[in-house]
Amino acid sequence: MAVQTVVTSTDSSAVDLGPAAALSCRECGHRVPLGPVFACEECFGPLEIAYDFSAYDTEELRKRIEAGPANIWRYAPLLPVPADVAEKPNLNPGWTKLVQADHLAGELGVEPGKLFVKDDSGNPTHSFKDRVVAQALEAARAFGFTTLSCSSTGNLAGAVGAAAARAGLRSCVFIPHDLEQGKVVMAAIYGGELVGIEGNYDDVNRFCSELIGDPAGEGWGFVNVNLRPYYAEGSKTLAYEICEQLGWRLPDQIVVPIASGSQLTKVDKGLQELIRLGLVEDRPYRIFGAQAKGCSPVSTAFKAGHDVVRPQKPDTIAKSLAIGNPADGPYVLDIARRTGGAVEDVTDEQVVEAIKLLARTEGIFAETAGGVTVGVTRKLIEDGVLDPSLTTVVLNTGDGLKTLDAVAGTGLTATIRPTLDSFREAGLA
Amino acid sequence: MAVQTVVTSTDSSAVDLGPAAALSCRECGHRVPLGPVFACEECFGPLEIAYDFSAYDTEELRKRIEAGPANIWRYAPLLPVPADVAEKPNLNPGWTKLVQADHLAGELGVEPGKLFVKDDSGNPTHSFKDRVVAQALEAARAFGFTTLSCSSTGNLAGAVGAAAARAGLRSCVFIPHDLEQGKVVMAAIYGGELVGIEGNYDDVNRFCSELIGDPAGEGWGFVNVNLRPYYAEGSKTLAYEICEQLGWRLPDQIVVPIASGSQLTKVDKGLQELIRLGLVEDRPYRIFGAQAKGCSPVSTAFKAGHDVVRPQKPDTIAKSLAIGNPADGPYVLDIARRTGGAVEDVTDEQVVEAIKLLARTEGIFAETAGGVTVGVTRKLIEDGVLDPSLTTVVLNTGDGLKTLDAVAGTGLTATIRPTLDSFREAGLA
Repeated sequence: MAVQTVVTSTDSSAVDLGPAAALSCRECGHRVPLGPVFACEECFGPLEIAYDFSAYDTEELRKRIEAGPANIWRYAPLLPVPADVAEKPNLNPGWTKLVQADHLAGELGVEPGKLFVKDDSGNPTHSFKDRVVAQALEAARAFGFTTLSCSSTGNLAGAVGAAAARAGLRSCVFIPHDLEQGKVVMAAIYGGELVGIEGNYDDVNRFCSELIGDPAGEGWGFVNVNLRPYYAEGSKTLAYEICEQLGWRLPDQIVVPIASGSQLTKVDKGLQELIRLGLVEDRPYRIFGAQAKGCSPVSTAFKAGHDVVRPQKPDTIAKSLAIGNPADGPYVLDIARRTGGAVEDVTDEQVVEAIKLLARTEGIFAETAGGVTVGVTRKLIEDGVLDPSLTTVVLNTGDGLKTLDAVAGTGLTATIRPTLDSFREAGLA
Repeated sequence: MAVQTVVTSTDSSAVDLGPAAALSCRECGHRVPLGPVFACEECFGPLEIAYDFSAYDTEELRKRIEAGPANIWRYAPLLPVPADVAEKPNLNPGWTKLVQADHLAGELGVEPGKLFVKDDSGNPTHSFKDRVVAQALEAARAFGFTTLSCSSTGNLAGAVGAAAARAGLRSCVFIPHDLEQGKVVMAAIYGGELVGIEGNYDDVNRFCSELIGDPAGEGWGFVNVNLRPYYAEGSKTLAYEICEQLGWRLPDQIVVPIASGSQLTKVDKGLQELIRLGLVEDRPYRIFGAQAKGCSPVSTAFKAGHDVVRPQKPDTIAKSLAIGNPADGPYVLDIARRTGGAVEDVTDEQVVEAIKLLARTEGIFAETAGGVTVGVTRKLIEDGVLDPSLTTVVLNTGDGLKTLDAVAGTGLTATIRPTLDSFREAGLA
């Protein structure tokens, strides 16, 4: 499946979203002008952004990027945002650390200097969601929306609340009414409306779709529904940053977590764009998808050789990945197979072990999704699927402070009285 | 009190800590070679680093800094670290965002474009402690220590554990045995020794001092005890970054939280160094100190016109600032008075209000210490002490995710059934 990114420059649109020229159906290629729509009117396929990159000179573009700000807006020429985006109030996420993880490499049997962790816990609200919400915010502004909204079970709620506060927009976030208190606080602190829905996450989603079609939802931009085509593009910046931070080189292998699968498909899209633009050398790369066994519809389909993904009922501590019916699952399967990658899963126990392993070796405290990618990387190496002699990047998409419960068993290694004798008795000397 | 920063280049030392030439007593000026000592052998005054900056050309130094990495090591020529520090495994903290806070400015009556928040929640373990621990780590390496240690009640424990893990050193952190479970998890996750002491924080400190003098403590670097002179210098980087991010300009006013007072004195030291090196124009600036009323020994002394600080028993939600007997209190008083600043305090209620205000206006979720600085800024403006027409920088030194309990009352703004009727009834349309 080829990735459609370049269109003729005859496309026009009333809104200024930089190089974004139109929306194009991923399934049938039908095109519509830029707008707050997400499904193809012809075939109900997902719409995505088609760009006009035809005017770019490779070396000029590279220089422009390198001279840009230390955040995602250095890539504004490749994103659906206006050229002056960096001057507007937003959270300026991105340009997070790519950590050369030699101690972790040692534990996993990867050659020294070959293993990297892309640590997105460094984003403003400490998850990769800031990248995608930042794109949706610009689309919301372009379409004249005054309320930023979403359905969420955690990370996204905080990212939307924070971005709206900074931009001076109203926010109204919908969550299941019985979420953990910590997540509620993190979503509520930014002062927007935070509405608990009596029901589960599916009920919340269904309600949001209803609201979009109702006059009451007029002027509302739902980042992950009617702004989804714009929102999703934010994940491309992970691919851009990784390549630039590697010295404008493609990684040989990259391990990406799978929730809806959108992130993985956009990482691939970003890599393809860099190749097409001449910013990196065109070499083979493999993309690996990572899931928790308790919600592994895509890895199950991959292993069974299926093209379709059969929904599962999630039961895992990796809640930010717990989407049982991932919309982009078939595209993920296609990309993993096309690039020579794979999709694998690990148990919750392995997730916790991997969180501790990453913290102990590199000082990075990842949320459960990071435990999933590190755990899957370990498994893929042990199984001979991932090549430990090649440059490999593992994504950590969130912060351990957000999923403390998952490692609640971690604690004191000793308790002593405040005396040297007690210290010696404990064997600490 | 003049800040002693330049010494003759005849000083020599066996260890390579870059421009650090010797240790010098802040009280009597007595000098000793670089080593793991913290108190003057003559007068028991605090030792601090004396530098040799004599070889620097201003414009060359500026270019070298600007071409440096996007972390504190861009300032390596001004820190007690070897020249190759950026190549060693460490957490590379710093170069956090300086956020132009126009919405907050509007609420506080500050002129647009004049108010900035220096947001240190973007550091690797989400507090400014990563800056100081990074310096202590280099000193530990230089002195051949194999264990990194500290006494802590929270942020520091995590910062030390993470830095040691990344560096491949052993860590052993001492905390009161009855800390909140969340803080224990955050400190334990990095896999070092985490020892609970049966006693309060004073008992922990006393024990650590005993351990340093005992053979059992040989080879141990306590970041905030025997490595304190190096450790403390990390706070200078806040001053460097603020000035560079303002376009190599001094801020007119800066609001700094006070725990031990060390950070405020080192911010002043950093500003003085930039002036002396010609990197910024020498203009007046005012430094303001911020405390919580429940632990306000320095603001109490400031208001009473005293030169000495009378210890208090802390009782405040701002636990990271709750040092009742701040070692650098007298120096803080001196700096606030010399620069025309002030020291002020706010109630716990005002701290919570300020946390919410900052989150609501700028999308920044601060820990209680950030609530203290924002709250004090508001109070100082209302009282006519801080000039709202001048460029003002407010420090946020930590992340709200670490002090969720302080804002636990924040929650849902509405609960509805998943229907449009219920949505309308709640007045959300």
